[in-house]
Amino acid sequence: MKKEKTSKLKIIPLGGLEQIGMNITAFEYEDSIIVVDCGLSFPEDDMYGIDLVIPDISYLKDNIEKVKGFFITHGHEDHIGAIPYVLREINVPIYSTKLTNGIIEHKLREHNMLTKVKRKVVKHGQHINLGCFRVEFIKTNHSIQDAAALAIYSPAGIVVHTGDFKVDYTPVFGDAIDLQRFGEIGKKGVLALMCDSTNAERPGFTMSEKTVGKTFDEIFAEHKNRRIIIATFASNVDRVQQIINTAYKYKRKVVVEGRSMVNIIGIASELGYINIPDKTLIDIEELKNYKDEQTVLITTGSQGEAMAALSRMANGMHRKVSIKPTDTIVLSSKPIPGNEKAVSGIINELSMKGAHVIFQDVHVSGHACQEEIKLIYSLVRPKYAVPVHGEYRHLTAQARIAEELGINKNNIFLLSSGDVLELDEESAKVSGRVHTGAIMVDGLGVGDVGNIVLRDRQHLAEDGIIIVVMTLESGSGQLLAGPDIVSRGFVYVRGSESLMEEAKHLLDGRMMYCMDKGITDWGKIKSEIKDSLSEFVWKETKRRPMIMPIIMEV
Amino acid sequence: MKKEKTSKLKIIPLGGLEQIGMNITAFEYEDSIIVVDCGLSFPEDDMYGIDLVIPDISYLKDNIEKVKGFFITHGHEDHIGAIPYVLREINVPIYSTKLTNGIIEHKLREHNMLTKVKRKVVKHGQHINLGCFRVEFIKTNHSIQDAAALAIYSPAGIVVHTGDFKVDYTPVFGDAIDLQRFGEIGKKGVLALMCDSTNAERPGFTMSEKTVGKTFDEIFAEHKNRRIIIATFASNVDRVQQIINTAYKYKRKVVVEGRSMVNIIGIASELGYINIPDKTLIDIEELKNYKDEQTVLITTGSQGEAMAALSRMANGMHRKVSIKPTDTIVLSSKPIPGNEKAVSGIINELSMKGAHVIFQDVHVSGHACQEEIKLIYSLVRPKYAVPVHGEYRHLTAQARIAEELGINKNNIFLLSSGDVLELDEESAKVSGRVHTGAIMVDGLGVGDVGNIVLRDRQHLAEDGIIIVVMTLESGSGQLLAGPDIVSRGFVYVRGSESLMEEAKHLLDGRMMYCMDKGITDWGKIKSEIKDSLSEFVWKETKRRPMIMPIIMEV
Repeated sequence: MKKEKTSKLKIIPLGGLEQIGMNITAFEYEDSIIVVDCGLSFPEDDMYGIDLVIPDISYLKDNIEKVKGFFITHGHEDHIGAIPYVLREINVPIYSTKLTNGIIEHKLREHNMLTKVKRKVVKHGQHINLGCFRVEFIKTNHSIQDAAALAIYSPAGIVVHTGDFKVDYTPVFGDAIDLQRFGEIGKKGVLALMCDSTNAERPGFTMSEKTVGKTFDEIFAEHKNRRIIIATFASNVDRVQQIINTAYKYKRKVVVEGRSMVNIIGIASELGYINIPDKTLIDIEELKNYKDEQTVLITTGSQGEAMAALSRMANGMHRKVSIKPTDTIVLSSKPIPGNEKAVSGIINELSMKGAHVIFQDVHVSGHACQEEIKLIYSLVRPKYAVPVHGEYRHLTAQARIAEELGINKNNIFLLSSGDVLELDEESAKVSGRVHTGAIMVDGLGVGDVGNIVLRDRQHLAEDGIIIVVMTLESGSGQLLAGPDIVSRGFVYVRGSESLMEEAKHLLDGRMMYCMDKGITDWGKIKSEIKDSLSEFVWKETKRRPMIMPIIMEV
Repeated sequence: MKKEKTSKLKIIPLGGLEQIGMNITAFEYEDSIIVVDCGLSFPEDDMYGIDLVIPDISYLKDNIEKVKGFFITHGHEDHIGAIPYVLREINVPIYSTKLTNGIIEHKLREHNMLTKVKRKVVKHGQHINLGCFRVEFIKTNHSIQDAAALAIYSPAGIVVHTGDFKVDYTPVFGDAIDLQRFGEIGKKGVLALMCDSTNAERPGFTMSEKTVGKTFDEIFAEHKNRRIIIATFASNVDRVQQIINTAYKYKRKVVVEGRSMVNIIGIASELGYINIPDKTLIDIEELKNYKDEQTVLITTGSQGEAMAALSRMANGMHRKVSIKPTDTIVLSSKPIPGNEKAVSGIINELSMKGAHVIFQDVHVSGHACQEEIKLIYSLVRPKYAVPVHGEYRHLTAQARIAEELGINKNNIFLLSSGDVLELDEESAKVSGRVHTGAIMVDGLGVGDVGNIVLRDRQHLAEDGIIIVVMTLESGSGQLLAGPDIVSRGFVYVRGSESLMEEAKHLLDGRMMYCMDKGITDWGKIKSEIKDSLSEFVWKETKRRPMIMPIIMEV
């Protein structure tokens, strides 16, 4: 292969750097592009009203004839969530392992796209030839089953992309990460390693998922006379498996509750990724036939999401289940950064209902800590290090590890989304940038809320709006009605009558002035109103509501 | 004293339960009320535009002739922040220790109230007689100096209120907590203990503030050739003292930056709570006269606050200081719940500028962990336990500790704000409730933003607003102009012309229908417009903007 090479390999992250989420990376060699992952991200706090965020894939659209296919490392939303939006515009085949594919199919079905998108199920160890590339799927461990690292063979050399991973020597289901293969490929000589940075700040080794199973055993042993409700991530099938195992051991019936939990467990069960003993699972309707201490509920809502099952149970909005003082509730999770207050809120609500809430040490991470990252670097021994999957702080932390392991600082690349990294055995450098961005999805609208709309929402949220309407006579420009003032989100009007009257008085005066001066230009009238009213309001209240003059003509 | 008693003591928290913040508790015995603390809380995420939140003190106003004075345990905002608002309505004397009083005076001065409010400086160990009460200030340790616990002697018995505290055997400044006195009062027999719950979920013992000093020594030793910038809480004078000590040892000049930092250090220095060696402190203007490695900046912004000095340095908005790759930046703090993302954001920004950022293990808490709470209970041995200062989860955690220590479950009271706990040696029970609440401050407005305005702001933030204006002829009710549609924060109008045209077309039709049917009632016309437009918008976009019809009459 090396003999033929004339060009360099380009690695172009279109998202996923500067943040945890929206993972999507293009690999380009001459006339071939393959794409790894196609994820969404969840909106930041100040993205009011936004449901989700997807990557801007202009670069792929501009090079659509080159794009050969998508390779998906695992079935989490930050790796698959943008598929229904992106594949609508770039319809190429998707390659993924069986469970990942099952979850993708479910998503495509929801978007009525199942028949339109080609999918191919790949086994760990299998190689796919596509354009100039060959891609090998390598078994890894993660907080969802069937995760894969990818070895991407290009004429310029091999790139190993870990996907999201941890090293679990004793996984609940299936095999441990294929460390041998990482070593074998490393021996061949690897050009670049793109490694998960999520936990690169954390020393040590992430514990095996199995340790959580032991914790469940202890909790069930201690809480024999109580109903047990366990909230966890819907996609963590192994976690659910372990709860079911413990429930079975303690002769409890299991109810699975929450839409996404039911979906994923359904898919996993159908595809053979979860093993539920006969008569263990019951329908939520059957709960009443059993004593509390004979049941376990596995539910969504471990992040304090307002509409998830656990929240609805906590605040009495759930139709089938309400929390009792005799409940033991386990949050088998850790708050995702940004969700801390919501999680704390749910712990408070559950505690107020008298329930016993367990929320510490019933979780392990799905991402590699520092020692695991060192292990992978030591097996792969890449020429270049390209930390991925993280905010800048995480990428930096991995860069420090790479340096510690002897990789030359100049061979470590902290990329930004849009950077074009050109590399081969001789050299590597960021040779340019392509257009990238975040497209906001709000309801049915994809991209129709941009920065202007968002800034308006932020302005409206901060201090509300004051609308000033008036009717002018066409031609003469004489004031026929108004100016009338209406406000929302500014001040409690009934408690602020004198303020509103003063404002009205002020505007009457300004309009009189405009009429006297013969000002009929609507733009001038509007800015007269805006300026005088905003100055008045700021003086009186130290607030800056949006001020919106509207003129009608009769 | 016991002989005379005829009534019960009432403990009435007016805030500070269900949350960390807004601490204020009334103690009432017959015709006397004293109040402990007068704090604010910071707005929740969904309180758009709100600057701060203060307690509703209707109960105190309704009983104003009984209220004798305020006792303040320490100078943090959640204990003193509401003073300028509350004391405007209830002007009674404030009792506090010297540094606390200094900080209160600064606050009163800012509100032009210094001459209007009586203040009395109290020493630890001193007793104040006020109405039926005697109040003793007891030395404690906390993340601000001069903190006090209070022993409140009433005819019904003694209540010990810890304030916020930790046990620091080796404080940086002044004495360790007066454990002997807690024991001595405990021996007399204590009716109730109101103990800080903040860290009641954390096992073990909070480390001494001095351990952070050792960490500073290590950091300075390791980073000899770099400028060092340390962000911490402005009010943690001991932390600042330790930075100055280390800076002096390493012959660095110190700049203090950030308004609140400058204020508090000024007050502490004036009152003798901080000891700055001559010629150590320099003005920020003098920085240019020294090499980077000869300087240390102590700054605000450790919580990622957007307008604080550190943020401005990080994003290039600070007029005097910008971040360089040769800077070592230390966050000597821990994110307050809810600030995690903002703190992460600043770590990312600083890392991107190439600075070395240290943010782990350069902080200790100011609150007692489980073993310290057990120590205080064991010294005081109260009849009743009333956990305070915490969300429900924290109160519950302390309740479990109290039970473990042998306090009867029925003698532990998890109060809500507004509960009236009546107690004496014979019994204790919640006998009623008083009105409490949270009053929002937005700019100059105190309480003029309530739930209605807030809900409007939330609605506006979520999906924006559509305004429909029209002019009708007075009398006939004929449509003279409009309906015109204007929107803000709903959709990017230039990209959604056809949607807006369809909406306009729909409304024209509805108005035609109203005119045809002779509908002239404005209420009916408005709801016709609202209903049809909101249905249309929901169908097309799955959004629910605020829809606001405005009719003018000519």
